[in-house]
Amino acid sequence: MYRPIVLLLFLFLQLSGFTQEIATVISPNGKMKADIYLDDDKRLSYHLSLNGNIVIQKSNLGFLLKKPALQLNQFDVQAIDTSSFAETWQPIWGEEKEILNHYRQLLLHVKSAGILMDIEFRIFNDGMGFRYLFPNQELLQHLIVDEELTQFKMTGNHTAFWIPGDYDTNEYTYNKSLLSEIDAVAAVVKEKDIAVISPAGKYVVQSPLMLKSNSGMYINIHEAALVNYPAMHLKLNPVDYSFQSVLTPDAVGNKAYLQTPCVTPWRTIIASDKAEDILSSRIILNLNEPTKYHDTKWIKPQKFMGMWWEMHIGKANWPLAGGKHGANTANVKRYIDFAAQHGFDGVLVEGWNKGWEDWFGNWKEEVFDFVSPYPDYNIDSLTRYAQSKGLRLIMHHETSGSVTNYERRMQDAFGYMIANGINTVKTGYVGKIIPRGEHHDGQWMVNHYNRVAEKAAAYHIMVDSHESVHPTGLHRTYPNWLAAEAARGSEFNNAPTLGIVPNHTTILPFTRLMGGPMDYTPGIFSMSLNKFEASRTQKVRSTLAKQLALYITIYSPLQMAADLPEHYEAHLDAFQFIKDVDVDWDATKIIAAEPGEHVTIARREKGKPNWFVGSITNEQARNAKLVFDFLDDGVKYVATIYRDGDDADYENNPESYKIEKRVIKKGDQLSVMLKRGGGCAISLIKL
Amino acid sequence: MYRPIVLLLFLFLQLSGFTQEIATVISPNGKMKADIYLDDDKRLSYHLSLNGNIVIQKSNLGFLLKKPALQLNQFDVQAIDTSSFAETWQPIWGEEKEILNHYRQLLLHVKSAGILMDIEFRIFNDGMGFRYLFPNQELLQHLIVDEELTQFKMTGNHTAFWIPGDYDTNEYTYNKSLLSEIDAVAAVVKEKDIAVISPAGKYVVQSPLMLKSNSGMYINIHEAALVNYPAMHLKLNPVDYSFQSVLTPDAVGNKAYLQTPCVTPWRTIIASDKAEDILSSRIILNLNEPTKYHDTKWIKPQKFMGMWWEMHIGKANWPLAGGKHGANTANVKRYIDFAAQHGFDGVLVEGWNKGWEDWFGNWKEEVFDFVSPYPDYNIDSLTRYAQSKGLRLIMHHETSGSVTNYERRMQDAFGYMIANGINTVKTGYVGKIIPRGEHHDGQWMVNHYNRVAEKAAAYHIMVDSHESVHPTGLHRTYPNWLAAEAARGSEFNNAPTLGIVPNHTTILPFTRLMGGPMDYTPGIFSMSLNKFEASRTQKVRSTLAKQLALYITIYSPLQMAADLPEHYEAHLDAFQFIKDVDVDWDATKIIAAEPGEHVTIARREKGKPNWFVGSITNEQARNAKLVFDFLDDGVKYVATIYRDGDDADYENNPESYKIEKRVIKKGDQLSVMLKRGGGCAISLIKL
Repeated sequence: MYRPIVLLLFLFLQLSGFTQEIATVISPNGKMKADIYLDDDKRLSYHLSLNGNIVIQKSNLGFLLKKPALQLNQFDVQAIDTSSFAETWQPIWGEEKEILNHYRQLLLHVKSAGILMDIEFRIFNDGMGFRYLFPNQELLQHLIVDEELTQFKMTGNHTAFWIPGDYDTNEYTYNKSLLSEIDAVAAVVKEKDIAVISPAGKYVVQSPLMLKSNSGMYINIHEAALVNYPAMHLKLNPVDYSFQSVLTPDAVGNKAYLQTPCVTPWRTIIASDKAEDILSSRIILNLNEPTKYHDTKWIKPQKFMGMWWEMHIGKANWPLAGGKHGANTANVKRYIDFAAQHGFDGVLVEGWNKGWEDWFGNWKEEVFDFVSPYPDYNIDSLTRYAQSKGLRLIMHHETSGSVTNYERRMQDAFGYMIANGINTVKTGYVGKIIPRGEHHDGQWMVNHYNRVAEKAAAYHIMVDSHESVHPTGLHRTYPNWLAAEAARGSEFNNAPTLGIVPNHTTILPFTRLMGGPMDYTPGIFSMSLNKFEASRTQKVRSTLAKQLALYITIYSPLQMAADLPEHYEAHLDAFQFIKDVDVDWDATKIIAAEPGEHVTIARREKGKPNWFVGSITNEQARNAKLVFDFLDDGVKYVATIYRDGDDADYENNPESYKIEKRVIKKGDQLSVMLKRGGGCAISLIKL
Repeated sequence: MYRPIVLLLFLFLQLSGFTQEIATVISPNGKMKADIYLDDDKRLSYHLSLNGNIVIQKSNLGFLLKKPALQLNQFDVQAIDTSSFAETWQPIWGEEKEILNHYRQLLLHVKSAGILMDIEFRIFNDGMGFRYLFPNQELLQHLIVDEELTQFKMTGNHTAFWIPGDYDTNEYTYNKSLLSEIDAVAAVVKEKDIAVISPAGKYVVQSPLMLKSNSGMYINIHEAALVNYPAMHLKLNPVDYSFQSVLTPDAVGNKAYLQTPCVTPWRTIIASDKAEDILSSRIILNLNEPTKYHDTKWIKPQKFMGMWWEMHIGKANWPLAGGKHGANTANVKRYIDFAAQHGFDGVLVEGWNKGWEDWFGNWKEEVFDFVSPYPDYNIDSLTRYAQSKGLRLIMHHETSGSVTNYERRMQDAFGYMIANGINTVKTGYVGKIIPRGEHHDGQWMVNHYNRVAEKAAAYHIMVDSHESVHPTGLHRTYPNWLAAEAARGSEFNNAPTLGIVPNHTTILPFTRLMGGPMDYTPGIFSMSLNKFEASRTQKVRSTLAKQLALYITIYSPLQMAADLPEHYEAHLDAFQFIKDVDVDWDATKIIAAEPGEHVTIARREKGKPNWFVGSITNEQARNAKLVFDFLDDGVKYVATIYRDGDDADYENNPESYKIEKRVIKKGDQLSVMLKRGGGCAISLIKL
């Protein structure tokens, strides 16, 4: 009777989990701390805390391989290396002139099922990144990933800002809910206006995922440097509030094909007790590789207008057939004239090329050839005309999801652009992907987007991708990849069902924008959309002043003035802000921010002393209190304040605004009323 | 009690099937007759007979669509058009100077589930072709095919010559069995040496399918003009001996994406009571579209040698690493010297480009770039050297199945070829296809092969595709697509398990070759394969004389002399036949043939009075009786007869041969003993 009791006791100890802490890393400022544990059953886990408060509970690490068929979830630690790193680097363009990359590193050499792996942790003051590495080894040359077993275990029932996990789109409306309330299926059902959806299940949400704990800790989970790997989604376990990585599958259900030596993207956790710190974190950018481009002088941040919104609101249309073809020579000329007169860099033209008569919904492979303009679009003369006016056309390459077709034709298409003096392309991926069975977020497409960036660079072409995978800071590596849509953009103002809700733009910076610049296309001045087609009863749910503020709160080196020339001509005083605002910055200060509520940001113009401020609110009016402590000492600035009119209201009177001027210096304070769905934009020009 | 009985009676009549004959077409010579029936339940069927004997029993027609989800198997006949056609056309190259295309046509306009369809029947003297057409119509613009419901119902338990249905390979050994004995799974299990297999089920076999009835009728079933559609396989119903079309699925299980107006490939049935007539049928070629190429002067039939077999038998290897790199400058020079000395047109070089170190088995996308030679392969100097000797290099593009990669690089690769004076490419598709989930025989790959042919033509490049889909006569449309492998070729002589069995080459003409020329790579003179690696115990199961005969019995405008220069140097007298034999013909006469037994063919050299004869047998020795009734009147020919030695035997003494010369004139007879696994080749040069 004696031995069984001992055995039971032993089993109990096994199950209770003797856990050995095998390493600890503390951030340079000593506040962020990562602990690495190995349990008795060889499970490896990490734990993250900030100032002694838990950010991530003990969460497991591991892999499931399909080929070779192995479970890599029990580990022997072979060795542990630690190091420190600090450098300051200059982005080609960005939110600030210099970025500090400062972290302590832990490199865990482990073995699982005979396979050598490394797990690399970088602990920054504001968070952590970690990734898996498979060194080249005799037992493992090629691998097929079945699933990555990375966990992110929360401490409680946090508030989450989330969109449904979906392998083909990130254009959902954000949901704000407790973790326990997450129901991605219900959220998908509410959406009616997204072209192609592939929801990933009730508990699966997308990254960047923004969380706020009851105790006021802000946590952001995402990934950095998504290269040769599928995008990661996150599956909630509603019992213990843990998330588990869900990789986007390929056409046959595999997740990734890798060859050693190889690395996964970084899994990033940013945390602070101040929401503003989340927005000023540069962890994701720092975890990306510096660009390998030798010459980057041809890469230019841009403001542009375009033949685009008037199609969305029914004034014009993409196809030649139907009698409303927008991209005709005369109409594009009109845009060029207006854009040139107001100092823009480019004019986007959608609907310029043959194929729009039958481009969507049939998984058709041969749609566009990207080199055949419609007969009423005289690209030669327009190119010369634009050049004579000092700007350039921006070309649109809508692939309709037929990526095999685009890849076959890309070389000729880029050559055609260059021959026509065009050096920026807006790519689009509306539709089910061909290769059939592949998803927008899968490894194959991830490789495609990166390939486009790299190939375009060889032609000195800048890229603005729409319907692409969530950005992960790759604009550090591919600085010609200026922006992506990859979220619900301003075009959804025209979507009948949900539109753009007022809090959307206060969540975007904490979610989608964490990965990189977004071509949101702000600047809508005319909020009623039934001017050309009476059936469009939906309205833009934003005040005009808020539209101006978005040029600051939504960072992008590529910003569109999305509305029609005639709509700007009706408000040239307000339009002045769009003309003045820069798209490249030497400094950024997050003045105040709370996801779902409000965002106020100030940015200093590239190479100039001027500052620009944007402040937005959700559906609630509120007072924005600005303290100008960021201005230069002893300098006076002429502040032009574009604020909501006293009677402004996104629902009832969105186009009411007021412009005030005053002189402001460092330390001054300003209180501005942001109306419901409203905002405020300020330019501060050095006197 | 009265009414139910009436109902039952009516049901009985329905089930018993009142069948209405709605059309009959009779071939120009009156012997081949197609009958079209519509049953009471609106099922549409065809019936084919030859001289009153049934070739195909009443067999159903129809379609299953996935999108729109419709069953197109009950029809209303709208109209019936009939017409006749006769023309004689000249192929760019081929088995004869002129081809007669003579048929009676029936065009059935039908409606099913609201959809308009046409079914087109062409009745030739030697068989029939039929296909489905979907006209452009408001209710049907785009369609996704779930399955084609075409039946081929045999009259009894015929003998079949078949290989297992497989979506990724046609490199199986042929099986000869009764229909009732078909077991494709068992046949697949026997094979060990095929790189990638995707068997389609126990009762599924491939086309071209060769059948012989108990009463001695020969029937061949295949397809013609496989364009924008997946390859058809055939599923046997062992109860009633009917075959049903099985289309190759894509990555998500769909069969084809079509847009109206569209057509399916032709389904072909060739029938005769003489086996020889099957081989001389030109139905498949006639059912293909004439070429649209304006300039075809650059297209040249060729004989070539190559850096290839010595890799297969272990003298050399493809990769640079390993110390046995065959494609080094000196070795290729040696091939150029020998090939030039003996009047060849080209030298194929495999293993010339970087990537072979890790090219197979891992579904890897980035393998070859097609423009990077190994450092020991001086392509510049070899190109010039080849030119100075009056021949050209033939480039090898092994895609390793990564077709997305090839398509991205094809433009540069073809440009590189032209820059290096190379105008023939051997393409290869060894490996699982990328786009992952697609098959070698699927619609996407069918479009790829056709695209390669068309794109190569734009560069004036000729194509020899390996591991491609079964040919369907498209060399009429794309005459630069000289040949394909697409079957078990001579390389399998080196395969350890089944090798090439002696009857293989007597079945090929009745099956694979029905669709078009094959790059079989005959001409092996050295039958023991253990010269360089002792472990290779398998032997070539053919006599040397049979290897010569294959240049005639396997038609191709692109023929390789596959063995090593040193092996030919040991038998220069026999090699003389390979030097003399042409690869383009003004006339072809099938002297005698029986699938699985023997084939004897005579061909007249293009633009010259000389004839060449090839005669082969299976594993049985037999006497070939030649009656030279096809020679020109009053002309004397010097016949050089390359026959098996008296002691020749494919197992015991394969390299024994005898060369005799004699003068022959029209009407002479010759009896030649073909030894076991043997053959005979004869050149008849006009005196």
